[in-house]
Amino acid sequence: MDPRVREHAELLVDWSARIEAGDDVVVSVSEGAHDLAVAVAGVLGERDANPLVLYDSGEVRRAYLKASDAFETDPDHERELFERADAYLGLGGGRNTIALADVPAATRREYDRARQGIREARLATDWVSTVHPTRSLAQGAGMAYEEYCEFVYGAVLRDWEALATEMARLKEILDAGSEVRIEREGTDLRMSIEGRTAVNSAASVAYDSHNLPSGEVFTAPVADSVEGEVVFDVPMTIRDRRVRDAYLRFEDGEVVESSAAAGEDAITAVLDTDDGARRLGELGLGMNRGIGRPTDSILFDEKMAGTVHLALGRAYDACLPDGEAGNESATHTDLITDMTGESRLLVDGEVVQRNGVFRWEEGFEE
Amino acid sequence: MDPRVREHAELLVDWSARIEAGDDVVVSVSEGAHDLAVAVAGVLGERDANPLVLYDSGEVRRAYLKASDAFETDPDHERELFERADAYLGLGGGRNTIALADVPAATRREYDRARQGIREARLATDWVSTVHPTRSLAQGAGMAYEEYCEFVYGAVLRDWEALATEMARLKEILDAGSEVRIEREGTDLRMSIEGRTAVNSAASVAYDSHNLPSGEVFTAPVADSVEGEVVFDVPMTIRDRRVRDAYLRFEDGEVVESSAAAGEDAITAVLDTDDGARRLGELGLGMNRGIGRPTDSILFDEKMAGTVHLALGRAYDACLPDGEAGNESATHTDLITDMTGESRLLVDGEVVQRNGVFRWEEGFEE
Repeated sequence: MDPRVREHAELLVDWSARIEAGDDVVVSVSEGAHDLAVAVAGVLGERDANPLVLYDSGEVRRAYLKASDAFETDPDHERELFERADAYLGLGGGRNTIALADVPAATRREYDRARQGIREARLATDWVSTVHPTRSLAQGAGMAYEEYCEFVYGAVLRDWEALATEMARLKEILDAGSEVRIEREGTDLRMSIEGRTAVNSAASVAYDSHNLPSGEVFTAPVADSVEGEVVFDVPMTIRDRRVRDAYLRFEDGEVVESSAAAGEDAITAVLDTDDGARRLGELGLGMNRGIGRPTDSILFDEKMAGTVHLALGRAYDACLPDGEAGNESATHTDLITDMTGESRLLVDGEVVQRNGVFRWEEGFEE
Repeated sequence: MDPRVREHAELLVDWSARIEAGDDVVVSVSEGAHDLAVAVAGVLGERDANPLVLYDSGEVRRAYLKASDAFETDPDHERELFERADAYLGLGGGRNTIALADVPAATRREYDRARQGIREARLATDWVSTVHPTRSLAQGAGMAYEEYCEFVYGAVLRDWEALATEMARLKEILDAGSEVRIEREGTDLRMSIEGRTAVNSAASVAYDSHNLPSGEVFTAPVADSVEGEVVFDVPMTIRDRRVRDAYLRFEDGEVVESSAAAGEDAITAVLDTDDGARRLGELGLGMNRGIGRPTDSILFDEKMAGTVHLALGRAYDACLPDGEAGNESATHTDLITDMTGESRLLVDGEVVQRNGVFRWEEGFEE
């Protein structure tokens, strides 16, 4: 077996999920993630944890969803399984990224709705999602298989401790700061982050971070404070549409103008979800230097070093003052802009990042 | 998909496990049983049952077993899952029948011991085990893959209702009978079945039968009553040894002499397990006419029409008078003899089967 699969498994179990002896662990294995499952089982055995292994097959789920016309709310056996579990490890990596292509969206929504209690029980565990590189994911990313393996392990096998320390610097700046300004060609955006708390998303439950890879610092803008315009030049698929160069203009925190070079109707559809969808819920800065190119997968793209992402819609509770409700939209749609060209990111007038380079990095120019 | 996979799934869900709307079902999928899992999920969806799908991978289990040196007793999350489940469908069909070959037997025993509560919870559901034909199983059976598919579906896709009715005739004879006698070249064996109840094993939980395929009627001999000698000419692998023409001689129910043309030490090892291992726990008659040849798999071989099998060791409670303890050996080792040559099986002096043909079948000669 590729020794990187074993390294991946160790990172997942030890750094990300912080598994300890006696932990009851649910491991969910996608159709193509067998090898990672074998490695994870070995590491869990060494840690004296108790794995129960689920089969997460798109084809099995499709067959069930297409056949059933009544989804029971939170079936007892599955709910209890997750309520008793200490941790959940989701090993993505299917054999067809669109295995559910012909399942009506309404059916999927109904199924998701019926399983809200199960989902909440799962999210109450020390859960972590990761992906094993498969040919299907390589294809979705526009890469050859071996090329994609390099890409995934480049993003996953980081020195997370060192990155967490670096990201803590940015978190400190954002937590102390009041106003963020983003400037580049076509973009001049200001927002308040007064009283908000940034999350150091270091791919570990210890940092309230549940994806491996991760590598971003994010916070929640004050809802009505966003002013100005922004272009998102990292292409991505939104609601099955390819979107390029989306443009948004904000007044008093609300989107008052939008366009896109491609996929404009997808942006319109997002904005029309509900009131919150016209406002920002997240400001995030990608800091994972192992991710050098976009692959149309949000798990990777938004972590890319030198990018900034903004999400229309829902805010994360962890960023908000205790008890304060933030943006509670039903959507959370990330849009990404590449800062590695001519650009500046300022906090309270101080340049924190120029041309994608942070002030503490070599090559930074004031 | 091969339409027989869908037929198999329907039989499993409807005839065997008797799944009803709202049932919480655990489906366990072996590495090579994906296609059957897809079909089963579709049928469960149609019945409005709630499937939770486990991944039963020999390679994942091996990695865990080889790495761990302390198995927790009945981990909470897994025990609760099975305690809440209404039914369990085990879809066998791995990619390597000896995936656990290098896991020490002591480790496997320790693991099994630690999971006794989980096993009991599983056996308390409406559980059924079946197999999906894989190349690995074909290889183990000594067949080409397509040949093996024909074999498996020939055994599984029966008219179970009709077979259950036929087997009820034999059960009636055995339930009413007192003495069974088996005669063929090298074999003359007598035993009492007085007061015992035969099981009509018709591949359905409704018949207390938990394997698909099944197709046998079995009972438990009275422990001390077995007298005479018997040769088992259907070859099989016992404790990793190939056994041919095992011979046993009984006095007062106990084996007093044993030999074999090959694998004699495996027979000796079975007999030395404990006191019960030297006595019979089961007399069974195979009645599945879809199984025309032995494949060194007890799931199929003991159901083969025209064979009789006897098990050294443990008896099934269902065959015993209420509250009576039967043979409680730690082993239950089946041995099979082919009755299709010159032979007779008599119950209380009446010929019930001659040359492998039952008295109600065409071609039977008194």
